[in-house]
Amino acid sequence: MNILITGGAGFVGARLARTLLARGTLAGRKIERLVLADLQPPPPDLLADARVQARTGALLEHAAALANEPLDGVFHLASAVSGECELDFDLGLRANLDTTRALLDALRQRAAGGAAPVRLVFSSSVAVFGPDPPRPIAPIVADDTRPTPQTSYGVHKLVCEHLIADYTRKGYIDGRSARLMTVTVRPGKPNRAASSFFSGIIREPLAGLEAICPVSPETSHPVSSPARTIDGLVAVFEATQEAMGGRTALNLPALNVRVSDMLDALEAVAGRAVRERVRFVPDPMVAGIVANWARGASAERAQRLGLKPDADFAAVVRQYIEDCERSPAASSALAGFST
Amino acid sequence: MNILITGGAGFVGARLARTLLARGTLAGRKIERLVLADLQPPPPDLLADARVQARTGALLEHAAALANEPLDGVFHLASAVSGECELDFDLGLRANLDTTRALLDALRQRAAGGAAPVRLVFSSSVAVFGPDPPRPIAPIVADDTRPTPQTSYGVHKLVCEHLIADYTRKGYIDGRSARLMTVTVRPGKPNRAASSFFSGIIREPLAGLEAICPVSPETSHPVSSPARTIDGLVAVFEATQEAMGGRTALNLPALNVRVSDMLDALEAVAGRAVRERVRFVPDPMVAGIVANWARGASAERAQRLGLKPDADFAAVVRQYIEDCERSPAASSALAGFST
Repeated sequence: MNILITGGAGFVGARLARTLLARGTLAGRKIERLVLADLQPPPPDLLADARVQARTGALLEHAAALANEPLDGVFHLASAVSGECELDFDLGLRANLDTTRALLDALRQRAAGGAAPVRLVFSSSVAVFGPDPPRPIAPIVADDTRPTPQTSYGVHKLVCEHLIADYTRKGYIDGRSARLMTVTVRPGKPNRAASSFFSGIIREPLAGLEAICPVSPETSHPVSSPARTIDGLVAVFEATQEAMGGRTALNLPALNVRVSDMLDALEAVAGRAVRERVRFVPDPMVAGIVANWARGASAERAQRLGLKPDADFAAVVRQYIEDCERSPAASSALAGFST
Repeated sequence: MNILITGGAGFVGARLARTLLARGTLAGRKIERLVLADLQPPPPDLLADARVQARTGALLEHAAALANEPLDGVFHLASAVSGECELDFDLGLRANLDTTRALLDALRQRAAGGAAPVRLVFSSSVAVFGPDPPRPIAPIVADDTRPTPQTSYGVHKLVCEHLIADYTRKGYIDGRSARLMTVTVRPGKPNRAASSFFSGIIREPLAGLEAICPVSPETSHPVSSPARTIDGLVAVFEATQEAMGGRTALNLPALNVRVSDMLDALEAVAGRAVRERVRFVPDPMVAGIVANWARGASAERAQRLGLKPDADFAAVVRQYIEDCERSPAASSALAGFST
């Protein structure tokens, strides 16, 4: 089986790649080759696996060639993030819309040449939901909540969901869209996603650094650990179209937590001194963006696929610590407390 | 005031042009120039008006130049219809998505050069609604019903609604999307829209021709006369963003009627002999498409703008007859009965 992961050098993509390589199979078939396409080369541990090949550069230019390689499945994760899209409208359209169109059209050409429709999982986002003033956002966004995105990123994700549903209806691909919740705790540096602080307020204190929380402790949000997120992507790939329960996107399971719950969990796992490194400094711009976001999500269709949210946020914090302990950067990432 | 109508030589576009020229003003300003862009040149009566200019050819190639002409408002009606999009996937993407993107990006460049955001009304469609099996379509689709289109045409319309909302949010245009109901009675020949028979079963019998109805008499559908549809487009142009009640698309008012109601009205207006020219010959392909369509629609936001549906279907039939009587083709269009 030949699998392509776009965005395969990113945090979620590389973790998915490691999971697939460790499993060795997907949908009951042996994984022979895993192509990781990204602007950056994949991490060294992935490149060291003989099954891994890298395709480095802009996906828009690579898409047609990639779709003509031997290919049985695609995880399409590559995306410009929300903050990038707000700062550079053209970049967002190019990276998120034009690139997806190029990939879908190349896969369609492939099917027109007689190949079986390629199974494709698209990582959509809870960012498709928002208010449409004067109508507020639903308190809990569900699979069938009407999406009215309030960012360019959310619009791009929603547009791609519907294009993928249509290419699937026509038989050009076997596509499925899964809406990722905010993935927490991300390692490394803050990125330009407005949601970046949801990881920062856990990651920085554990590293011994001060973290700024720009929103109120009462702010509630649907999050998911990296491991549960990968479980979701794999399950959506492996499901039959019937089990998916519709061609439109489904929500992946969310743990709906308040910032104060997150910090209580951080304290329970890592101690009071760690929690006290988080300072609340309201940022009206970030708070304004977050006010338009879902405060919680449900995931009925994903649950029918057997997927579950994280048990609680302490489990999410412990997952992050265990991941760090296995990584070469453990000493600096966990410099702020002793296990 | 300089106004552009894309699809300005089509049935709805030309009627909108006539309405605007007769009014002489739009949003309280005098109409100086009306540019009609279409694949075909506009009808002679429109070309004869000194305020009218034609731009004939593919909009995709004209869009950038059009947006750099003096311009205060756009009615973006140009579109490949549902049947065309199902037959030619590339044509649909090009005519409906790429063309709208080109137009929006040209308007954005214009605003970047310091011009005021151009007000733009986009003609979306009730075709954005559909079932997402196993979930059936809502019995009555409302402004806030979740759209899950089941045709490429419906997907394109929905995608454009969201792009227009995003360009508006960013201040690049002042965009509004109005979902047209099935416009009935259209004059002329049947077209490739699967909904074409909704006009044919009235138009052909009045012309003395036999008409085939491919669906059951119990089939219910939201329709609107041409005049009420134009009223809707003009009102949506003239409304403030606040009065629009959201950036997402609104439904225009619908008369929800069954085929049998339509034929009862035809008989009441034109007599039993005319009605008896309609034969029911089930077409499983058309019936399959129509089964995925809305059986009725509501239009709460449009009603708040003062818009109303047609009073009843007899009024729709009478409007068609009166329109024919004013046209040069009256004798053949109404050959099937005597008024």
